[in-house]
Amino acid sequence: MFKVNDNYLKLPGSYLFSTVGKKSRAYQAANPEKQVISLGIGDVTQPLAPAIIEALHRAVDEMGDAKTFRGYAPDLGYEFLRNAIAKNDYADRGCRIEADEIFVSDGAKCDSSNIQEIFGLDNKIAVCDPVYPVYVDSNVMAGRTGTYDAATGMWSDVIYMPCTADNGFAPELPEKTPDLIYLCFPNNPTGATVTKAQLQEWVDYANKVGAVIIYDAAYEAYISEENVPHSIYECEGARTCAIELKSFSKNAGFTGTRLGYTVIPKELKSADVSLHALWARRHGTKYNGAPYIVQRAGEAVYSPEGKAQLKEQVKYYMDNAKIILEGLKEAGYCVSGGVNAPYIWLKTPEKMTSWEFFDYLLENANVVGTPGSGFGPSGEGYFRLTAFGSRENTIAAVERIKRI
Amino acid sequence: MFKVNDNYLKLPGSYLFSTVGKKSRAYQAANPEKQVISLGIGDVTQPLAPAIIEALHRAVDEMGDAKTFRGYAPDLGYEFLRNAIAKNDYADRGCRIEADEIFVSDGAKCDSSNIQEIFGLDNKIAVCDPVYPVYVDSNVMAGRTGTYDAATGMWSDVIYMPCTADNGFAPELPEKTPDLIYLCFPNNPTGATVTKAQLQEWVDYANKVGAVIIYDAAYEAYISEENVPHSIYECEGARTCAIELKSFSKNAGFTGTRLGYTVIPKELKSADVSLHALWARRHGTKYNGAPYIVQRAGEAVYSPEGKAQLKEQVKYYMDNAKIILEGLKEAGYCVSGGVNAPYIWLKTPEKMTSWEFFDYLLENANVVGTPGSGFGPSGEGYFRLTAFGSRENTIAAVERIKRI
Repeated sequence: MFKVNDNYLKLPGSYLFSTVGKKSRAYQAANPEKQVISLGIGDVTQPLAPAIIEALHRAVDEMGDAKTFRGYAPDLGYEFLRNAIAKNDYADRGCRIEADEIFVSDGAKCDSSNIQEIFGLDNKIAVCDPVYPVYVDSNVMAGRTGTYDAATGMWSDVIYMPCTADNGFAPELPEKTPDLIYLCFPNNPTGATVTKAQLQEWVDYANKVGAVIIYDAAYEAYISEENVPHSIYECEGARTCAIELKSFSKNAGFTGTRLGYTVIPKELKSADVSLHALWARRHGTKYNGAPYIVQRAGEAVYSPEGKAQLKEQVKYYMDNAKIILEGLKEAGYCVSGGVNAPYIWLKTPEKMTSWEFFDYLLENANVVGTPGSGFGPSGEGYFRLTAFGSRENTIAAVERIKRI
Repeated sequence: MFKVNDNYLKLPGSYLFSTVGKKSRAYQAANPEKQVISLGIGDVTQPLAPAIIEALHRAVDEMGDAKTFRGYAPDLGYEFLRNAIAKNDYADRGCRIEADEIFVSDGAKCDSSNIQEIFGLDNKIAVCDPVYPVYVDSNVMAGRTGTYDAATGMWSDVIYMPCTADNGFAPELPEKTPDLIYLCFPNNPTGATVTKAQLQEWVDYANKVGAVIIYDAAYEAYISEENVPHSIYECEGARTCAIELKSFSKNAGFTGTRLGYTVIPKELKSADVSLHALWARRHGTKYNGAPYIVQRAGEAVYSPEGKAQLKEQVKYYMDNAKIILEGLKEAGYCVSGGVNAPYIWLKTPEKMTSWEFFDYLLENANVVGTPGSGFGPSGEGYFRLTAFGSRENTIAAVERIKRI
């Protein structure tokens, strides 16, 4: 008789954003006359930029002609895209990353959940708390996290690095030594970042203890301050300890178009085993490439027109962030984030739990946000709003929140 | 110090098709004047059908307009596509599969390698031998296959079901009882199929011993004979023992466009645990949906125009199959397949090994095929050619093979 993967049964509840979606759909169904505004899931609302649309149309035409039709993509992704990434995201910032150290994928969510597969089950992981739930959940599914304590919301074999108001939402080096360290800056959900000097400390620490940093830079495009690093490879020594994950979802609106990439420098090794080779093997065996037309769309992100148009798009969302940040401050909320990230992190009023505030906001303001506790135990008592709505909805949501 | 996943180190060599690609590229580089024809990797060459191109352009335009822009897709895939699949691939064939039992993905390769993740590590797998290498390789990576014996090319904990000329390339029920049974009909690489009565025996067996059949129907569109089932759900009792994987790569030319789906009926359970729920959790946590524009392209596959155009496309490739099959017969080769599948399976002449024949064919006819031994130990002494080339290349390749 077949046996299921018991680790799945340890997962409490369903995936955070599925639950948020279900609750808001249920409310809308019960109250069809209400206009619910979602600032919950971090999904973009602006259309793809004209340069990207043009690139997509051109690539579609190529797929309709036998002379230019493309079948299976190269294992690592098309060179035209990897070259554009290597130049724009790395060389132009003074980071040494070769095009063949870049693995094109269908998005950072997949990469951030799949990357743990190339590591043994006996590695100890460390995560910021709160953080994007996929890091922990994918390790739970693999069986790397021990047992769950419902009272604390913590896994016995996970090292939690609290990011709280006390430390400015920047984690401190952990007391226990981890093998894999997930860092996400600008952080989802807090919107907080670290300086280059702070990140250098993490790189030095990882090299010292022999840990790998899995660095999720999905929100890099929203960095507005000078001393915040755009890539972990800006730090010295990162090539021997860091994997970087990038997404096209937030800088170019690809949440429904799907594109991302992972960087694994060739120096990153355990004894003689190269992580680059292991990931290449996984990519070749368990994946089959992002669509050609989508890789061409990704290339257009780096064209002069694409860059100019996307700068405007990022500004649009960051103006939303400012509206939320200032509006909530006026309404007396304790808020942070929203300066180097499209997320606003607020303390729930009157000691409400995160889910109590979710219901309160949904029922009284018809606004959907994301409960901070869904991102980890230290997120309890906090709440995340995103700047990815339309201007109109953002203004309306803030007005409604002010009124309650 | 971090530890790698040691299971990866057990994998012999690299992924089969990566090796084939590397060898043929090396030959071409060393012999730039030669015109190498690839009938190796099962990659299509005909452009996307006009109905699909139109659907892609329409969807691209939607993505460029804020009113019709789409962000994250629903977890299971868009309803418009799942409804089209449920109707055309199941209801119209008399199979009861609901739209919410279908999980849209970026292709059957990913699904066939990921599906093992929802099962425990102590399940015993059974595979046809030879077969598509991803089933075994993904289980090796997970640690489910024991140790590799280089002399026999076999894993100690895998049940091999030889498909040889003796049994008409149709596997027999195994002596040891498996928990997970991978079946692929029409088979890759042999091109062989089973009748509905034969498949019913497998379904009855799986229900009796409590095994799950993972049924890969990627080549279903190439079935030309009446008594060959297009779906395992044509068999009685399949809803309690079978998962079905489907691809858009071969019936619609989506190898570079990426789309597939997995069906898990809700009755498929271990004790009280539903495999549908586990896969939904995996999908929600480790995946983020196929691109909207690609899902619209998938919908067009089921439109009246799409169906008519793809029928022609399949016929084109099957005419190629006939040319290869008859040409090789004339040349004195012992061949099979090519009737319900786009693959021709040939016995290597003069007791050459599969890789010897690969080199022989590459050097003397400048034709690339795939060594049968790459698909499993019983594939040794066999060789696979695909019908996915252009007509011109197919004819030229057959002429060259005849000449040597």
